[in-house]
Amino acid sequence: MTVKISHTDAIQSFFKEAAGFANDSGSTRLKTIVLRVLQDTAKIIEDLDISENEFWKTVDYLNRLGSRSEAGLLVAGLGIEHFLDLLQDAKDQQIGLTGGTPRTIEGPLYVAGAPLSAGEARMDDGSEDGVGTVMFLEGQVFDSHGQPLPGATVDLWQANTRGTYSFFDPSQSDYNLRRRIITDAQGRYRARSIVPSGYGCDPQGPTQECLDQLGRHGQRPAHVHFFISAPGQRHLTTQINLSGEKYLWDDFAYATRDGLVGEVIFREDGARGIEGRYAEMKFDFQLQQAADSAAENRSDRPRAMQV
Amino acid sequence: MTVKISHTDAIQSFFKEAAGFANDSGSTRLKTIVLRVLQDTAKIIEDLDISENEFWKTVDYLNRLGSRSEAGLLVAGLGIEHFLDLLQDAKDQQIGLTGGTPRTIEGPLYVAGAPLSAGEARMDDGSEDGVGTVMFLEGQVFDSHGQPLPGATVDLWQANTRGTYSFFDPSQSDYNLRRRIITDAQGRYRARSIVPSGYGCDPQGPTQECLDQLGRHGQRPAHVHFFISAPGQRHLTTQINLSGEKYLWDDFAYATRDGLVGEVIFREDGARGIEGRYAEMKFDFQLQQAADSAAENRSDRPRAMQV
Repeated sequence: MTVKISHTDAIQSFFKEAAGFANDSGSTRLKTIVLRVLQDTAKIIEDLDISENEFWKTVDYLNRLGSRSEAGLLVAGLGIEHFLDLLQDAKDQQIGLTGGTPRTIEGPLYVAGAPLSAGEARMDDGSEDGVGTVMFLEGQVFDSHGQPLPGATVDLWQANTRGTYSFFDPSQSDYNLRRRIITDAQGRYRARSIVPSGYGCDPQGPTQECLDQLGRHGQRPAHVHFFISAPGQRHLTTQINLSGEKYLWDDFAYATRDGLVGEVIFREDGARGIEGRYAEMKFDFQLQQAADSAAENRSDRPRAMQV
Repeated sequence: MTVKISHTDAIQSFFKEAAGFANDSGSTRLKTIVLRVLQDTAKIIEDLDISENEFWKTVDYLNRLGSRSEAGLLVAGLGIEHFLDLLQDAKDQQIGLTGGTPRTIEGPLYVAGAPLSAGEARMDDGSEDGVGTVMFLEGQVFDSHGQPLPGATVDLWQANTRGTYSFFDPSQSDYNLRRRIITDAQGRYRARSIVPSGYGCDPQGPTQECLDQLGRHGQRPAHVHFFISAPGQRHLTTQINLSGEKYLWDDFAYATRDGLVGEVIFREDGARGIEGRYAEMKFDFQLQQAADSAAENRSDRPRAMQV
């Protein structure tokens, strides 16, 4: 028979003490959260009869996870980040806040402060010329009434042909494939980039170690991340996932959503001054009106590097 | 009104997929644990209306916790490690396995492979001569019938006068204040050491950061850790906490227990070849009979350093 003690007054009092409810200092909010986590952790240990070895392997795993800064990758891979999007969708729906381009996960690889330009930008530093396929990425940003939004900020970031991101891959130049483009009078943005490769978790990292034991891969389809913002408009965090990708609908991070697939068209017509094969992808965004000024900004989420 | 979606079939199916139940590979045990953690995490997010910023601060905290290898310290400070002891006590009680010296938490600072000696050992390397107070620590190890146990291994470790441990404090020599003593024919062990100082969490570390917000200190009374083992006997993980200490019954890690307080007697009688003040502490241990050979060994818990 499974022995359980976590429901007893003695243990509940103990957890309240540990969560700081015996004192008047600190944060009541954090105490409430910590108490709940302690109660639920104890129940999991009892209900699933977690062994001493299993418990300490988990503690060791958390140390290794953090030492590689992979906690953000794990919450994406286990679907909790996608769950947060679905929950926010449900909250929006309840208050009738619908329409516009769907949100999807940010992922852990954004770096603030990318070079800013008006209307258009070249995103890559040229180091993969002849290796990567040139990609022209263009579109318009609209408001909820379908009116073009001039002066919107399109803050976009993507992987290179090896599926790695500047800053996290020290072999790339700073801000390679990261740009901020201010839309023109017609709400248009235009980027010249290279077709990104899908991203795979580090095969030696703790996230992949967990996925392996869950029988899951750690691959994402090729995609481009976006923050879209404009005065008076609700901030949008989203991604375009490229059509034709093997993992398009089998994304380990569950970021692909209806309405977020970008059609990549490959051409070889000598146009745009490109010799040989190149790609075009058109993608428009529609924002919602901001309910208040706070809604105009992205979350205060701590990010990997604050530049 | 709080919006909740985690109970819906769609979300439950999603979590099952994320936990790997859609495939036949990997570990069914880990899938079961991960699914439960996902379900409970989603419920916490919904019930406590966890904001996006709170969620991502937690993810960032986990990265910082792991990068400092403090997950083991946090689970001690939040009382989960002590809960594991209480749960094991309850399990033991249910099958009538009682008596002997109480167990208490191991903590995260054990290092295997300490110098081995017969009957007695000097634990300190002499680097705190004139600073630390010499302490003679002695006792006997008994079996459940009260018979002395010759050949038992007393594996003990403690902090120095600054409350730090060798290996974790690189200024100390390897294995300073860590020894393994094999009991003599009368089951006796004798150690010459120095009076340890209480331990405090790193004031700059993530564990103390959490405790601060819970309004709690991160201090422990002075103590000596023990693994006691002998053939045919159940392995014992415990600590002696020193009498007269400020934090004796206000230990942030909840390790102090009835039956685990060691009476420190200070003398200044010129005996034992010590000039001036020195300390004596006598402490006997009683082991339980091992139910099987696995019970003779400490857990396979991954430890900070495997030497």
